[in-house]
Amino acid sequence: MSARILVVDDQPANVRLLEAKLQAEYFDVCTAVDGFAAIEAAKLEQPDLILLDVMMPGMDGYETCRLLKDEPRTRHIPVVMVTALDQREDRIRGLESGADDFLTKPIDDVTLFARVRSLLRLKTVLDELRHRESSDALSYVMSEPIGDLDSVARAVVISGDPRAATRYAAAMPAQVRTQVETDPVTGLEAARSNADLLIVDLTSPGFDGLRLCARIRADAATRQLPILAVINPGDTPSAVRALDLGVNDIIHRPVDAGEMMARVSTQLRRKRYADRLRTQLDESLEMAITDPLTGLHNRRYIASRLHQAMESSNNGGAPVSLLIADIDHFKSINDRYGHEGGDYVLRGFAERVQRDLRALDLAARYGGEEFVIVMPGAGLAEARGASERLRASIASEPFDLGDGRSACVTVSIGCAQAEDGESAESLLRRADEALYLAKDEGRNRVEAAHSAAA
Amino acid sequence: MSARILVVDDQPANVRLLEAKLQAEYFDVCTAVDGFAAIEAAKLEQPDLILLDVMMPGMDGYETCRLLKDEPRTRHIPVVMVTALDQREDRIRGLESGADDFLTKPIDDVTLFARVRSLLRLKTVLDELRHRESSDALSYVMSEPIGDLDSVARAVVISGDPRAATRYAAAMPAQVRTQVETDPVTGLEAARSNADLLIVDLTSPGFDGLRLCARIRADAATRQLPILAVINPGDTPSAVRALDLGVNDIIHRPVDAGEMMARVSTQLRRKRYADRLRTQLDESLEMAITDPLTGLHNRRYIASRLHQAMESSNNGGAPVSLLIADIDHFKSINDRYGHEGGDYVLRGFAERVQRDLRALDLAARYGGEEFVIVMPGAGLAEARGASERLRASIASEPFDLGDGRSACVTVSIGCAQAEDGESAESLLRRADEALYLAKDEGRNRVEAAHSAAA
Repeated sequence: MSARILVVDDQPANVRLLEAKLQAEYFDVCTAVDGFAAIEAAKLEQPDLILLDVMMPGMDGYETCRLLKDEPRTRHIPVVMVTALDQREDRIRGLESGADDFLTKPIDDVTLFARVRSLLRLKTVLDELRHRESSDALSYVMSEPIGDLDSVARAVVISGDPRAATRYAAAMPAQVRTQVETDPVTGLEAARSNADLLIVDLTSPGFDGLRLCARIRADAATRQLPILAVINPGDTPSAVRALDLGVNDIIHRPVDAGEMMARVSTQLRRKRYADRLRTQLDESLEMAITDPLTGLHNRRYIASRLHQAMESSNNGGAPVSLLIADIDHFKSINDRYGHEGGDYVLRGFAERVQRDLRALDLAARYGGEEFVIVMPGAGLAEARGASERLRASIASEPFDLGDGRSACVTVSIGCAQAEDGESAESLLRRADEALYLAKDEGRNRVEAAHSAAA
Repeated sequence: MSARILVVDDQPANVRLLEAKLQAEYFDVCTAVDGFAAIEAAKLEQPDLILLDVMMPGMDGYETCRLLKDEPRTRHIPVVMVTALDQREDRIRGLESGADDFLTKPIDDVTLFARVRSLLRLKTVLDELRHRESSDALSYVMSEPIGDLDSVARAVVISGDPRAATRYAAAMPAQVRTQVETDPVTGLEAARSNADLLIVDLTSPGFDGLRLCARIRADAATRQLPILAVINPGDTPSAVRALDLGVNDIIHRPVDAGEMMARVSTQLRRKRYADRLRTQLDESLEMAITDPLTGLHNRRYIASRLHQAMESSNNGGAPVSLLIADIDHFKSINDRYGHEGGDYVLRGFAERVQRDLRALDLAARYGGEEFVIVMPGAGLAEARGASERLRASIASEPFDLGDGRSACVTVSIGCAQAEDGESAESLLRRADEALYLAKDEGRNRVEAAHSAAA
């Protein structure tokens, strides 16, 4: 997949060299000659990846990377540091400033492009979610910075070499609970049960680490889990293969504890970001169909589900019944106990509804003090029985109002079973007429609807 | 990226051959020996891709593919037909039954894996969205089948050879409006302005079609657009490169009109599916922050935005002011004109609020007949002016109740400017106290809050 790449280097010759390599692979390249220009270009051009030189006059690559990772508009763009420095300290410093990888000049093209492909693939998926981060609904929640690794995470180290595995486990950051597995089968099991990160050793004999990584990626349950693979230095084919299979990052033997810590932290930070995007999206979707006061479904949702259930019933499926329940004299509850007291009653009512329903029934607050319950598979007799149980449960004990007081509440309910070819509107109208009758007959009652034909 | 692939063939030798090839590339393979077993395995194993033989006893590959594409649980899985048949009619029949590609045995491995990688990449992105299709909030809308190509679509044909371009345009399905471009620069422009599909000719001399495809993919505005590339028969390197750059499908010269039509329809159908997923997700997110009755924001949203605006104000940003507006004697409007009349008033009120506000002001229905308006950048004098204008606008003419009647409505408003270091709760309380005063002083009035210090 092609993409836009920002090349940052103060040496024009270096820029030209990388630009030519990337263009030969059909990437779209933009360039910057120092850190300040890089940050501006990143905000403006929104590249998919940044190749960042470390040694630059003015602001160096470390500081540039930190600023890019602090800025909401560029935080999501992967950064690969490219440098002639190859001291352990430089590498760790680069990773700690937020870089996704640290490549040493002269750059090996195969490694570079494998890394670029891998980072772009991850970004493409997250962009689908991020695109929605800019929507109003999510932006306000997602605008906080992600922060450092603070909460507890669970890692699984999988290596055929128990001593090596123990060493890797010992190199984990303090907040990471690590489990060691020496067998690929139990390792995969452990990965499936609530891990946040996997360390897979590709160097242990008699153990096909690449195959294990492929399995982890082929399985929907573990597809999203970050994998850090341990390989032998100079084993470029394994590194490239691993990245192409979907491994997130590579670390070379002998494993340096500081580097392990920095790479693990990067992976966990990224996972937390992706998890938060997904959770936020799911929660927002949930909010779209939920009544905020009672936590029941809202009118919009129940209307569409009723429509669906009736369609399936009309196509020869099971029967469908509907209840409309309206709290009696709710206005006087509000007048007497205030809006807050009224809210307590509505919430308490919703609780009893949910307690009394079958698992497959759908309850919604339809508006004000009116509730609608859809009962898929239920005939009129069953709906009448459920209505009667609900009525009795509401009347059985007073509602707590949260301030030491309590209120006696009753409910009137109309119920109806959908008839052949009937529309949702007609069913709702019949149940509503039954409710009206229940109110008319003195409230705290259940009435079943007349047949539509009658 | 590794993935799970379902191989379907009635010849065990063929199954073993493909299985070995795929496993050598670290794919996870499951198998089926006929169409019925294939459909069951697809439902159960949820593979990422299906390689489907055409000639099978019992149910053939065409019928199997049709059933897989009709079934909601398997519809999203790409299908590649693999067959010894190489007649034009077979290929078109395969594509028309919903297959994503049609490969001829003996299979060229390079082409196979390029195609597999390309289909998997597209699937990974859609899975992020599809995952949410199974959530309650979306499932009810997304459960309808996608249907055939019926609505009008816009295609752009880009080829350096005007005669070839015209021939490709003539081969488009009737519902597709086609624009021909012979220059890559104007072609890219056309792609950016509301196209649904691009046909890019990789065979015209003096025109780097691969570079153009790369540009289209590197540009966020056109990244999602389906591209169908035209290549010379036997030019496997271009086909592989094109698929790896993100081209969605390939067609060989001389272009057969029937095959073009089938491939274009497949791409448009897939695009419509992806577009619907995205739109649905965005609309659901919008619903999560919207009051359904008035279309204004809801309480949840305004609370978080107020918090945000005050934080930025406390960090040395512009001032923030807040209005709380409450419709006077709303209960008697409801009593007199019924709930429906009340709803007309609430909607009409929201309309006047929106008409009178500045573009950057944020208005929400806070609950019942109470509205909150956040004015970023506004001091108390400005907020008071806006309040007074709103009050006058509400009182100026009666509200239409939809049934020929109309009602005179007035509003009381309390406004307040956030003070240094003040919390949202405190600001809301002060505005509410001012509102209370306005009610107390006779309604249809504006009152500004006292300073928090006073």
